[in-house]
Amino acid sequence: MTLDKKVADRVAILGLGLIGGSLGMALRRARAVGQVVGADTADGIGPAARAAGAVDTDSGSIRDAVKNADLVVLAAPPGQLAALVDQIRNDLASGATVTDVGSVKGTLVAGLQSRLPAGVAFVGGHPLAGRERSGIGAARADLFEGARCLLTPLPRTDAAALERVRRMWEAVGAIVSLIDPEAHDRILAAVSHLPHLVAYALVNTVLDLDDRGENLVAYSAGGFRDFSRIAASSPELWRDVCLMNATEIVRAIETYQKELEQLKQMITERDGPGLVRRFSRAREVRQKIHGGAD
Amino acid sequence: MTLDKKVADRVAILGLGLIGGSLGMALRRARAVGQVVGADTADGIGPAARAAGAVDTDSGSIRDAVKNADLVVLAAPPGQLAALVDQIRNDLASGATVTDVGSVKGTLVAGLQSRLPAGVAFVGGHPLAGRERSGIGAARADLFEGARCLLTPLPRTDAAALERVRRMWEAVGAIVSLIDPEAHDRILAAVSHLPHLVAYALVNTVLDLDDRGENLVAYSAGGFRDFSRIAASSPELWRDVCLMNATEIVRAIETYQKELEQLKQMITERDGPGLVRRFSRAREVRQKIHGGAD
Repeated sequence: MTLDKKVADRVAILGLGLIGGSLGMALRRARAVGQVVGADTADGIGPAARAAGAVDTDSGSIRDAVKNADLVVLAAPPGQLAALVDQIRNDLASGATVTDVGSVKGTLVAGLQSRLPAGVAFVGGHPLAGRERSGIGAARADLFEGARCLLTPLPRTDAAALERVRRMWEAVGAIVSLIDPEAHDRILAAVSHLPHLVAYALVNTVLDLDDRGENLVAYSAGGFRDFSRIAASSPELWRDVCLMNATEIVRAIETYQKELEQLKQMITERDGPGLVRRFSRAREVRQKIHGGAD
Repeated sequence: MTLDKKVADRVAILGLGLIGGSLGMALRRARAVGQVVGADTADGIGPAARAAGAVDTDSGSIRDAVKNADLVVLAAPPGQLAALVDQIRNDLASGATVTDVGSVKGTLVAGLQSRLPAGVAFVGGHPLAGRERSGIGAARADLFEGARCLLTPLPRTDAAALERVRRMWEAVGAIVSLIDPEAHDRILAAVSHLPHLVAYALVNTVLDLDDRGENLVAYSAGGFRDFSRIAASSPELWRDVCLMNATEIVRAIETYQKELEQLKQMITERDGPGLVRRFSRAREVRQKIHGGAD
């Protein structure tokens, strides 16, 4: 990759957890940018990220990190993005592109764009590459290879900025799709936010049901283990997601509640054929996703 | 292992799917029994099991297979066990031990014992070693290594028969616990049956929510994939489980419904601290199961 093909001369990554750290590693490995500058508000994370090869330089100051950066990646939980933009807005270079990696888009995209100075473009982004482990210790240079990355431009989003963000994700192996911010939140409510809530509720239910102190979780086989892994995700992140995408999530929960009530009725009425129909419908989805492979 | 230490001279395994096939492979590898005879009512499965090393001999007849067997393992879905016992009862050797591998115990254990002739003992068994894939093609000799196996003797269960079944599972690497049949069904309703229902309902919900034909499952990342894998389990098996453990499963679903309704209320009321409390409680369970590993 020659210099004039680089995605950016200087990328600032704010937040060096799993996603920010992995992005830095991947961009550096791909030689896709001139340099990666990173900053994290938590003590010791910047040096750890540099030691892990996630950044060329770590800055103790978020404001310093974005100076002269032509691409700024906000890799912080969605609930912190507005405050983060307010903190850096006066230090951003004119012509810079700002993007994020958050699980919620909706009105956030227009809100962040309006907080930025004229001449700085915002492009919403969301790589579908979360893991249950978090933090720089879980970061990997190949995290985004083959992963989908959803970008959520508005009609007025600067075309060159969108192209730059798209090229950044493609440089680290992601498959980029463009999607309307509201559609993003509606779809993610179904395939990501609802599953996490369902898993949290299930794990709590098993604790609720253990009213005789039998240590039920010690009997957990395959099924429950998957749920407990999902329910090990960050409580603060998922609080933010729930609060920022509340309407779509509540709608998804209510559809789910109807489905579950229907199954319960079938069990109560000993409706074997009805159960087989519902279970078979669900089973077919697996084929669509994986062609049966694991 | 010398001959007089063998678990049995002749073990008949009826049903050569994932569990029956794996058990045969594991017993043969451990040289724990004199010979393994297998039978399956589906065409071609017996020869396939022999080719896979799961049995020494495959019999075209379930009744022939159990003749002279001192240990008979019913490795068929729980809904078929009563009919299976009726089919073989006149061919069983006096002094034989019969056991099963089913996910439901409850009244089934007493029911099966009462169907057997005098001098034949029944011991309920349940290895917690299911996989999403099923059939002889998914069988593995190491399936039970380190897995829990629950045995559900009644007070009147023959002690020597119980010991024989225990030794069989220990010979293939399982960790055996004894548990009352009703406690088994109550616990499994929470840690296995409810999780499967929750997964089936979730996958169907995502299909329900796809009312604009956007192929939502194509957006699925980590969380949803785990659910779709669980929901790929056998519909007929899970129908049987639901019908045979209906009371405990309905009770578990109702506890779950309360938990989910509470989360929905917190989201509706934008109760961030409440959500963090619920999510954090669920997250801690992971530590109990795995010490954070996986």
